Amino acid sequence: MMIRNPFFRLAIGLTLSLSITLLIGAWVERPKAQTPNVVLFFMDDMGYGDLGVTGALGYSTPNLDRLASEGTRFTNFLAAQAVCTASRAALLTGCYPNRLGLYGALGPGSPIGINPNEETLAELLKEKGYRTGIFGKWHLGDRHQFLPLQNGFDEYFGVPYSHDMWPLHPNQANAHYPILNLIEGNTPFKAVNTLEDASAITSALTERAVGFIRNHRKEPFFLYVPHPLPHVPLAASARFAGKSRRGLYGDVMMEIDWSVGEILAELKKQGLDKNTLVIFTSDNGPWLNYGDHAGSSGGFREGKGTSFEGGQRVPCLMRWPGVVPAGRVSNKLLSTLDILPTVAKLCGARQPKNRIDGVDIVTLLKGDDSATPREQFLYYYRKNSLEAVRKGDWKLVFPHPGRTYEGYLPGQGGKPGPSTETHAIQGGLYDLQRDPGERYDVRGQHPEIVAELEKLAEAAREDLGDELQNRIGKNARPVGREGGQ
Amino acid sequence: MMIRNPFFRLAIGLTLSLSITLLIGAWVERPKAQTPNVVLFFMDDMGYGDLGVTGALGYSTPNLDRLASEGTRFTNFLAAQAVCTASRAALLTGCYPNRLGLYGALGPGSPIGINPNEETLAELLKEKGYRTGIFGKWHLGDRHQFLPLQNGFDEYFGVPYSHDMWPLHPNQANAHYPILNLIEGNTPFKAVNTLEDASAITSALTERAVGFIRNHRKEPFFLYVPHPLPHVPLAASARFAGKSRRGLYGDVMMEIDWSVGEILAELKKQGLDKNTLVIFTSDNGPWLNYGDHAGSSGGFREGKGTSFEGGQRVPCLMRWPGVVPAGRVSNKLLSTLDILPTVAKLCGARQPKNRIDGVDIVTLLKGDDSATPREQFLYYYRKNSLEAVRKGDWKLVFPHPGRTYEGYLPGQGGKPGPSTETHAIQGGLYDLQRDPGERYDVRGQHPEIVAELEKLAEAAREDLGDELQNRIGKNARPVGREGGQ
Repeated sequence: MMIRNPFFRLAIGLTLSLSITLLIGAWVERPKAQTPNVVLFFMDDMGYGDLGVTGALGYSTPNLDRLASEGTRFTNFLAAQAVCTASRAALLTGCYPNRLGLYGALGPGSPIGINPNEETLAELLKEKGYRTGIFGKWHLGDRHQFLPLQNGFDEYFGVPYSHDMWPLHPNQANAHYPILNLIEGNTPFKAVNTLEDASAITSALTERAVGFIRNHRKEPFFLYVPHPLPHVPLAASARFAGKSRRGLYGDVMMEIDWSVGEILAELKKQGLDKNTLVIFTSDNGPWLNYGDHAGSSGGFREGKGTSFEGGQRVPCLMRWPGVVPAGRVSNKLLSTLDILPTVAKLCGARQPKNRIDGVDIVTLLKGDDSATPREQFLYYYRKNSLEAVRKGDWKLVFPHPGRTYEGYLPGQGGKPGPSTETHAIQGGLYDLQRDPGERYDVRGQHPEIVAELEKLAEAAREDLGDELQNRIGKNARPVGREGGQ
Repeated sequence: MMIRNPFFRLAIGLTLSLSITLLIGAWVERPKAQTPNVVLFFMDDMGYGDLGVTGALGYSTPNLDRLASEGTRFTNFLAAQAVCTASRAALLTGCYPNRLGLYGALGPGSPIGINPNEETLAELLKEKGYRTGIFGKWHLGDRHQFLPLQNGFDEYFGVPYSHDMWPLHPNQANAHYPILNLIEGNTPFKAVNTLEDASAITSALTERAVGFIRNHRKEPFFLYVPHPLPHVPLAASARFAGKSRRGLYGDVMMEIDWSVGEILAELKKQGLDKNTLVIFTSDNGPWLNYGDHAGSSGGFREGKGTSFEGGQRVPCLMRWPGVVPAGRVSNKLLSTLDILPTVAKLCGARQPKNRIDGVDIVTLLKGDDSATPREQFLYYYRKNSLEAVRKGDWKLVFPHPGRTYEGYLPGQGGKPGPSTETHAIQGGLYDLQRDPGERYDVRGQHPEIVAELEKLAEAAREDLGDELQNRIGKNARPVGREGGQ
């Protein structure tokens, strides 16, 4: 049928034009609606105060500072536990690490590791069609079944545990550790025999991460970059050695900043920076016992291995242009636990079948600070001991035996100071809004807050247990053991 | 003479076109080459940790956070002394306040004030054709000859000293202070009789500051906005009261953030934001004795009235689009002392005739972090006692009698805790790069650094004196006295 009425012809023409315009518009707009690539940087023992934006002195971190100004910085973000394996287990599962039975730092040949029944962030994204790669430190078990390729990653290159777990480390000479191997896929690739070898790790991982982006630029990808540094033993490449005013620690930080810059530059080069969610954070606070070879808590109390803020408050930057507001700062209470559910949701992946502890913070991430997704509470465990609970910015620390760095002169030149373990920590109620340094115990002034936090603690003990009180929680799940289970 | 050669005619035509283009270009570009307007915000007792970008919890400061991301933030910036009058004297003269004999906090009717022979920043800019206005707290003497209009300002509206110096303040009832007057020009304008009056101060000053910009949009101006808050007694307008999760202190901070936002919006509205240098900082750290009515040092040790970092490290933001890099962070050691010579230079004004202690940081401000303009050292005085010296990020604190907040439960609801004065402070050598909280005295480990800092202290004593050692410096200048001198 020919349409002769010129009005109709005009109307149809306009409709067609409009449709084509809308179609083109939809196509042009598609990148925004697409699920993003994900680049997740996870540093080792980097303290809250180690970035330019958080007040680092003696060196600069221009790439990280720029990342912060292009995205949102979270100033009230806590690692799930203040030790390596525990924190990484939480990152990849969204669970308090004691729910999984994974805490402390697993040694070489450990009979336990991540339980294959736990679903990792990598598995969820892989199921959704993402290419998944990890270039860096794993530390969730170094036996075959625990390694990354058996837990959701397509590609792996890095160290399986901390790089102080080797015979050449200045203060581990009697630990009888095996030689540290870099792992490629599932097999040893190259032994790290000297500090010179270690000094090449950051640049080698950077090269792999950049290559991963280049190779997979045409498919969605999840790139996990857990740098083994600035954990001791420190080592910087010749390009950065001696370059900072803060000695080797500053040099190492400059190299890490460079690494982040290289990886972000590759995203840009491939035209992917607009459609990639970048997350940068750390596993726990600084190992202050190492003095000039340790980072800075930025003035927060204590450091790694403690449940004071210096142990668990870590830097956190997130960038996704057009989705995560630029130049914004959020002070909502958040945790490493929240990364898995948030990233899974943004990527259109499902949530894990097992119960997890993290909450999806997508609304907050997009700029709505009125959203209080995690009901603003958090438990501070060390291993399976409940050392503190938090509600909003009130924190109740229970008396406990633990680590302290205060009153101890730290070590120098890579050697640690005297042992800092098993002191009697008094505890107290702290108002972190006006006392971020946890100096003033105000239990006496706020009995009603103490009661409220005690209730939260009871819920934690019921759920997860508390060795301080010899309590076994109901909902802990079995850790992965040799042979799997 | 007619030019007949068509080539010449073309050449002349092109030259003329080019000249016109260049002229238009120069005219369009002029704002960049012009000397800038200056807006200087100077807060009262606002701590390092009181901004979103420096980790404030319980409220947000979106306008200040945006200002930080649009300009450069300085994380190693120190007030010249940790008390009100002293710090303000340094700001407006570029001198250590003890060089001028001005320290502590001048009370109502004080016989001393700023010496009319000192050249203030306002005088230098006024001489250069700037319109100068101050809307807020003066505190450099409240007798006629000491007031702003006699010291370089064309316009003044605000309080002459701290607004806790009034009879209605909860803990000043026995001080026999006169009723606090707002001053307009040189004369009392309106008595501040109640906290409700005080709650209107921030918005009233904001209105005046906005009006000043509007009135003088066509001439260069210097606008100085020293808000009397968040110093106690706290008061917020009905619009902000009860709005933060941090009680009245958070409400007051939200109102100050709003005020900054209003003033920046007026700059934008008048098309002046591109040609205005904006500086935001504070006179000293938080008055921790006031507990929930005090700000946060962000984890730094101690607060107002002490020479620990919590007393003198203050937030500092500077913005001048196209000149001061956006989204940048600098950790170079800087001081309130440096504002006068820097602003004078940027505005094409001369430097003061008298010797000053500040240094011009223009190169650094423009983005060159390799510049070390102030040779990276600083003296920490309280009144005329040299309590500490700094070189780079090493700080040597001398044993001294002084204020401490540690171990004292702070007050609540606007009432202070117990007196915190005249304790025996032990002192020590601190490496602020890895120990920003000044917890580890490393004198024993670094005798050569102690010797170097002792030398600097000797130079300070020779120059400025030291009451701790009963030394009188050679280069102190006479304070202003009644009748002028």
